[in-house]
Amino acid sequence: MINYLEMSKAQLTEEKETLTKAYETFKHLNLKLDMSRGKPSPEQLDLSMDLLDNKEYIGETGIDARNYGVLEGMPEARRFFAELLGVKSDEVIVGGNASLQLMYYLIELGYRNGYPDSEKPWKENAKNKFLCPVPGYDRHFRITEYFGFEMITVPMTPSGPDMDIIENLVEKDDTIKGIWCVPMYSNPDGYTYSDETVRRFANLKPAARDFKIFWDNAYCVHHLTDTPDTLLNILQECRAAGTMDMVFEFCSTSKITFSGAGVAAMASSKNNIDYILRNMFPMTISFDKINQLRHVKYFKNAKGVAEHMKKHSALLKPKFDKVLEVLNEEVASCGDIAHWTNPKGGYFISLYAMEGTAKRIVAMCRDAGVVLTGAGAAYPYGKDPQDSNIRIAPSYPPISELETATRLLSVCLRLATVEKLLEA
Amino acid sequence: MINYLEMSKAQLTEEKETLTKAYETFKHLNLKLDMSRGKPSPEQLDLSMDLLDNKEYIGETGIDARNYGVLEGMPEARRFFAELLGVKSDEVIVGGNASLQLMYYLIELGYRNGYPDSEKPWKENAKNKFLCPVPGYDRHFRITEYFGFEMITVPMTPSGPDMDIIENLVEKDDTIKGIWCVPMYSNPDGYTYSDETVRRFANLKPAARDFKIFWDNAYCVHHLTDTPDTLLNILQECRAAGTMDMVFEFCSTSKITFSGAGVAAMASSKNNIDYILRNMFPMTISFDKINQLRHVKYFKNAKGVAEHMKKHSALLKPKFDKVLEVLNEEVASCGDIAHWTNPKGGYFISLYAMEGTAKRIVAMCRDAGVVLTGAGAAYPYGKDPQDSNIRIAPSYPPISELETATRLLSVCLRLATVEKLLEA
Repeated sequence: MINYLEMSKAQLTEEKETLTKAYETFKHLNLKLDMSRGKPSPEQLDLSMDLLDNKEYIGETGIDARNYGVLEGMPEARRFFAELLGVKSDEVIVGGNASLQLMYYLIELGYRNGYPDSEKPWKENAKNKFLCPVPGYDRHFRITEYFGFEMITVPMTPSGPDMDIIENLVEKDDTIKGIWCVPMYSNPDGYTYSDETVRRFANLKPAARDFKIFWDNAYCVHHLTDTPDTLLNILQECRAAGTMDMVFEFCSTSKITFSGAGVAAMASSKNNIDYILRNMFPMTISFDKINQLRHVKYFKNAKGVAEHMKKHSALLKPKFDKVLEVLNEEVASCGDIAHWTNPKGGYFISLYAMEGTAKRIVAMCRDAGVVLTGAGAAYPYGKDPQDSNIRIAPSYPPISELETATRLLSVCLRLATVEKLLEA
Repeated sequence: MINYLEMSKAQLTEEKETLTKAYETFKHLNLKLDMSRGKPSPEQLDLSMDLLDNKEYIGETGIDARNYGVLEGMPEARRFFAELLGVKSDEVIVGGNASLQLMYYLIELGYRNGYPDSEKPWKENAKNKFLCPVPGYDRHFRITEYFGFEMITVPMTPSGPDMDIIENLVEKDDTIKGIWCVPMYSNPDGYTYSDETVRRFANLKPAARDFKIFWDNAYCVHHLTDTPDTLLNILQECRAAGTMDMVFEFCSTSKITFSGAGVAAMASSKNNIDYILRNMFPMTISFDKINQLRHVKYFKNAKGVAEHMKKHSALLKPKFDKVLEVLNEEVASCGDIAHWTNPKGGYFISLYAMEGTAKRIVAMCRDAGVVLTGAGAAYPYGKDPQDSNIRIAPSYPPISELETATRLLSVCLRLATVEKLLEA
């Protein structure tokens, strides 16, 4: 195949015809495939079915997990997540089935009541801003949009968000109240923050005394290779720097056991944890402790989780490989018209098409029966200024469907590129 | 025994000595009993252990309960609660493990965003008030206290809160934004609202367009006798009156299956449900659908629940009977110094001691090793203006302990009464 960027108008027109025919062929397949969300496949969910066999309900300190109480979580569950996150048990709250709900709660709490280091609740400020490394997780951005924050984008790099920009913004502007981070196998690029990035985060000197880093460690054990990325422990770095109050870290078993029925947890300074528990007290009597105990009995500890994650990796890795193989085969040969990430973990591949084509590509795929995450979804307000990024979620479809979907995606990408080049 | 109210000072002094000796005897028993919270006993929790055997995860419409999505709840779970509450499935949201959390969320949502019928969010009003029938549930009052509502008490009667007072207040004062109700086997009196009370609620004409009735039907199937109370269906009455937007109804399986790991639900007009779901969307992806499906598979329908509740009743009824028996034996014979309720369901007996003695009685019990709900807990801000009401929660302790605790309580009550009479 020839490099599209070196093609003549005639060659491009001919290529367009060829691709249009290929696209029509796909359309006649009446596909109905979904690569839109980072959902585990049924086979992945099957891996944890034995979890449900546990019927023990008395915890190690005698707590009956079936009954009311123990808002902060079962002691063994706090210890379990403390090990996973490398903190102390009393720096952890174990919650319900969704870490997103904990993040939402903490934005809402800051908005309504502020934090111990706030001069006043965020709602009383004339303006609040939030930093959003992009591309990022749409559900993060939706929370801060919902609470009326002005979202300021910061570009991602393979070693994390651009720290020069972040330091510059945060140290000058006290209306910036926080930042969303997915520090390991970031959504959607699959980048892991470098040690330097983590250290610079831990040593930020924000103008806002109540600036909070929302550290969503969603993929902390979600490796795809035997040589996984490593991530420096931010809360330990903060402990050393005296900045633990600045970080809320989150994780969950949503993509370890059941995405709709796992256990979520958060960690921060003891100071913050006490404040949060005091404020949670009017809200509920306790989270589901049977599910907490069930998870701890099943995994025992971080080692048990790591063993389990190898089974996920065995199911996921061939899917990621297939997508990358097809993209290499169908797109790489067309010249520098697109690039994509090759993550060592997490749930996504990030595809960067030629500027101004992502929406068109996603629309063509949809019209041929393949649903991708909406173009722009990885940006605040759903707007990718380059109209370039497409998030590929390989986890859910069977591998044969994934191959078909990626071939269609490749054809659409090439067709949109050729159209764009012909416009020029 | 003689009527205390007819005793001479000398007789009272003698009685005080006798009671003090009896109290000292209890103190030497080194009791450690808890009648403070409406917690099911381990035997009650054991009734539902088979629930945990369910490992089905595909719902009747093909939804995989293990995976993400379906914020409104599994369709069969919506239908299940719709039957329990006598409404339509699309008027129901099935949530997580705690109805209290749904109530908290709806107070918070009204505070922050208001409701479709609000002129503005409650937080923007100079003043917000909430009606609190008393005695009532401390966790209700704590929510409205936390959100800064001025709480206005309304006296309870055996047919429900005083509707003359409520109509008068609500129809005049547009700063009154809602009312807490436990309409069946009320906490702590065990009263069930009469048909007339329910109809008057459904036909309220509040000055505040966004006035909301928080109808916590916590004990809707929690009967203790074969001739249970009946409660008119408020949402059906509201449907007829065109006032469905005014009511949020709540229930849960907390005291049907597991108090810490049940399933909660709410019902309201379709209009409200749609509004709430739109606002919940940024908060979470879904509640725990495995637990929802597990519950529906176990009970099938309302009939299944009713059968199950007979087993609870068999465990609870003897406990209520024992408390009443001891009170009758030890206190009724002393004249009109106290009265108590005799509920046909629910979780509490409400004891009214002589004015100004409840705190003293609870303190004496505590000093002898029996923990009761704090005196005044059933009133906003924890303040019972009469210092008379004591909530007795018979469910948790074994019957022998319950007898001992109630005998101690009786001695303390009589002693505090004699002290009070001697003061006069």
